[in-house]
Amino acid sequence: MKERKIILSEKEMPRKWYNIQADLPNPIQPPLNPQTKKPAGPDDLSAIFPMSLIEQEVSSERWIDIPEEVLEIYSLWRPSPLYRAYSLEKALGTPARIYYKNEGVSPAGSHKPNTAVAQAYYNKEAGVKRLATETGAGQWGSSLALGCNYFGLECTVYMVKVSYHQKPYRKSLMEVWGADVYASPTDKTKSGRDVLAKDPDSLGSLGIAISEAVEDAAGREDTNYSLGSVLNHVMLHQSIIGLECQEQFKLVDDYPDFVIGCCGGGSNFAGISFPFIHDKIRKDKNIRAIGIEPKACPTLTKGAFTYDFGDVAGYTPLLMMYTLGHDFMPNGIHAGGLRYHGESPLVSQLCKDGLIEARAYGQEGVFEAALTFARTEGILPAPETAHAIKGVIDVALECREAVEEKTILFNLSGHGHFDLTAYDDYLAGKVKDVEYPQGLIDQSIASLQKLL
Amino acid sequence: MKERKIILSEKEMPRKWYNIQADLPNPIQPPLNPQTKKPAGPDDLSAIFPMSLIEQEVSSERWIDIPEEVLEIYSLWRPSPLYRAYSLEKALGTPARIYYKNEGVSPAGSHKPNTAVAQAYYNKEAGVKRLATETGAGQWGSSLALGCNYFGLECTVYMVKVSYHQKPYRKSLMEVWGADVYASPTDKTKSGRDVLAKDPDSLGSLGIAISEAVEDAAGREDTNYSLGSVLNHVMLHQSIIGLECQEQFKLVDDYPDFVIGCCGGGSNFAGISFPFIHDKIRKDKNIRAIGIEPKACPTLTKGAFTYDFGDVAGYTPLLMMYTLGHDFMPNGIHAGGLRYHGESPLVSQLCKDGLIEARAYGQEGVFEAALTFARTEGILPAPETAHAIKGVIDVALECREAVEEKTILFNLSGHGHFDLTAYDDYLAGKVKDVEYPQGLIDQSIASLQKLL
Repeated sequence: MKERKIILSEKEMPRKWYNIQADLPNPIQPPLNPQTKKPAGPDDLSAIFPMSLIEQEVSSERWIDIPEEVLEIYSLWRPSPLYRAYSLEKALGTPARIYYKNEGVSPAGSHKPNTAVAQAYYNKEAGVKRLATETGAGQWGSSLALGCNYFGLECTVYMVKVSYHQKPYRKSLMEVWGADVYASPTDKTKSGRDVLAKDPDSLGSLGIAISEAVEDAAGREDTNYSLGSVLNHVMLHQSIIGLECQEQFKLVDDYPDFVIGCCGGGSNFAGISFPFIHDKIRKDKNIRAIGIEPKACPTLTKGAFTYDFGDVAGYTPLLMMYTLGHDFMPNGIHAGGLRYHGESPLVSQLCKDGLIEARAYGQEGVFEAALTFARTEGILPAPETAHAIKGVIDVALECREAVEEKTILFNLSGHGHFDLTAYDDYLAGKVKDVEYPQGLIDQSIASLQKLL
Repeated sequence: MKERKIILSEKEMPRKWYNIQADLPNPIQPPLNPQTKKPAGPDDLSAIFPMSLIEQEVSSERWIDIPEEVLEIYSLWRPSPLYRAYSLEKALGTPARIYYKNEGVSPAGSHKPNTAVAQAYYNKEAGVKRLATETGAGQWGSSLALGCNYFGLECTVYMVKVSYHQKPYRKSLMEVWGADVYASPTDKTKSGRDVLAKDPDSLGSLGIAISEAVEDAAGREDTNYSLGSVLNHVMLHQSIIGLECQEQFKLVDDYPDFVIGCCGGGSNFAGISFPFIHDKIRKDKNIRAIGIEPKACPTLTKGAFTYDFGDVAGYTPLLMMYTLGHDFMPNGIHAGGLRYHGESPLVSQLCKDGLIEARAYGQEGVFEAALTFARTEGILPAPETAHAIKGVIDVALECREAVEEKTILFNLSGHGHFDLTAYDDYLAGKVKDVEYPQGLIDQSIASLQKLL
């Protein structure tokens, strides 16, 4: 019997995160203050972030120590298992070797706690008592609730109202871990009240929820803000995923030709791929890293590489990144985690420089891939993760065509236990491919030119 | 940093199941044919079970080989991790060492696939094309759907109607793995139609659903029936849980003083405890095995040890077991898996003979224990599993009182990702202790005397 799982002991867990800023051929452009449009300094950020995270945000140190307290919490589920997908390979009839890193084993069910725990720790260290954040479908909110729970921080989550009512399970999970969850827009913030004054029945949006959380954090001395993707320190914390994979590949004497992840804000893709990009840059390893996004929100494949806000209201610094424009409203697709208009500046720069690639897929093929995976490997993937799986299956079938024994690694970024409504819709034939019209993308991007 | 997880490699997975029938001080009484009331032979069962499972049901062989094909599927999630609950211990301030076996890592989220995969395999070997079963909240139905999926069997699940509508996620999960799921009572069987004729709005019950599944299987040549608990072969398949724990304890040079599991039909409790009962009987090990049940359904603590039907309609053989009477209708509690009127004959006999103990708890304390666990160890337990946790916490606090460094092992039989409505109710103060009235128990048990 061939072993499916490649396991590291807790003693073998990496003790340092990898910071790709040390190795970029071209550095990322600095964030700009949203008012002055001048490069933003630490003071622009210190109202809502602790100095330790601001330092990580701009650091060019290659290796950054993971605090012992964070490692101790990580060890509740890390190192996560690397699986060889024998059953999927057999079903596809491919000569390719497919591996997946299962980040769904965390208590919150995804990779998000890797940074939530670290952020909670650094805020606790800085004397902060409370964190505020936004959440859409609830993956990030539940992860931050978990992180705060471990370090005795209060946690307030502004959850997009439509999700609050449609995904009550995620809200309950946050409450189990002690967080306060509000349906956004609320009457607790000026930005929330402004929206409600115009539209008392507003269903909310991620943009509004971000504004509420940032306003909450900026207005209270004891409170900071926390973001689950996009920023450099988030990519840093997620690097433990790829670092573990590298150790696991040593155990089976293999190494990936392809590293694949789904791509929304970029953190799970960065987490699994950046340590391998390190090898590509410094050790001349010939790997291809592919970020998979939905055709409904094709940031890397159809967006512009330019400065844009991270939120709808324009409260955040301007970031140099691939973006569809902050006014971009993606169609209602089931992978809520991939509906963000922008992209991590680090992932964007690497894409610009040709060090990573991107592909976009429609929903039908993505759910078909998810079912193939669930019926072979057993695990039900999150709809976001299913995008990566669709990419993997396509590459594996290309290997079959070419009769090439390539090694494919992908990030199983989360399970789909809270996403079964989406599967229901797919099985009922209600999931259709949606592609965002090029004309609207052009229009949205054109409007960015007046920002600077 | 102390290691939390004790991991076996797939190579170290047990190759044989342990059959406690080889070691019972007093053998269990034979099942009786429901019509003749004479001991039931293989012919009484062969209409709905394959001969290989009937042989396991009556076998007195101590060790039974696990087929290679079953081991291969097991390896998707087995061996499951054994955790040292450092965070829980710290929160309780107990000198006891607490360990938990995490069976929630299976694709279906519980220990149930251990027997579902085995049953699907043996039925496939016997040329059966289709399995029929019942399910309440959906744990068992989704596990059998998973098992059938792997061996290319069709799977039909009669799901209690009220759960079908209240827990649509479990239904969706079964459909993802290819099963057909019907809200029971259906118009597809005589027993279903009889119920609907009397009450077109019937919400269904496990008793009705069992009758439908048995009727379906008995009426079709290509179809067998499958049961997820109670029977001897189910306890056999679950023994892999405890056998793995024994190997894992060797790795940390420890051994349990207490083995604890929640107890409904008995399969997860049997799975973790029987291999240790083996040590108790044959190696004179001084362990205490404790089954935890709800006060709302106190089968072992308040039931009678006598012959009773496994179902409401009286289709099944009569089993010698602890029972509250097959007409017993437990209050609506959130741990659906613990609402069964009877108990595994093997667990019952061991309880009768004093080799295992039982305790019953009310719902409020159980959910409080679940929250303590979720906020320390991170993992959200199923409400059934939370009963075991309540028992563990009580024992650990007894150890604190007595200043005793005992070792406690329990079975984390499943996660609670599909049970968040129950947590919602608890957090909203809507979960109340319910105790089944002694008078009704006496009445229900008295009516059993006319059975024989």
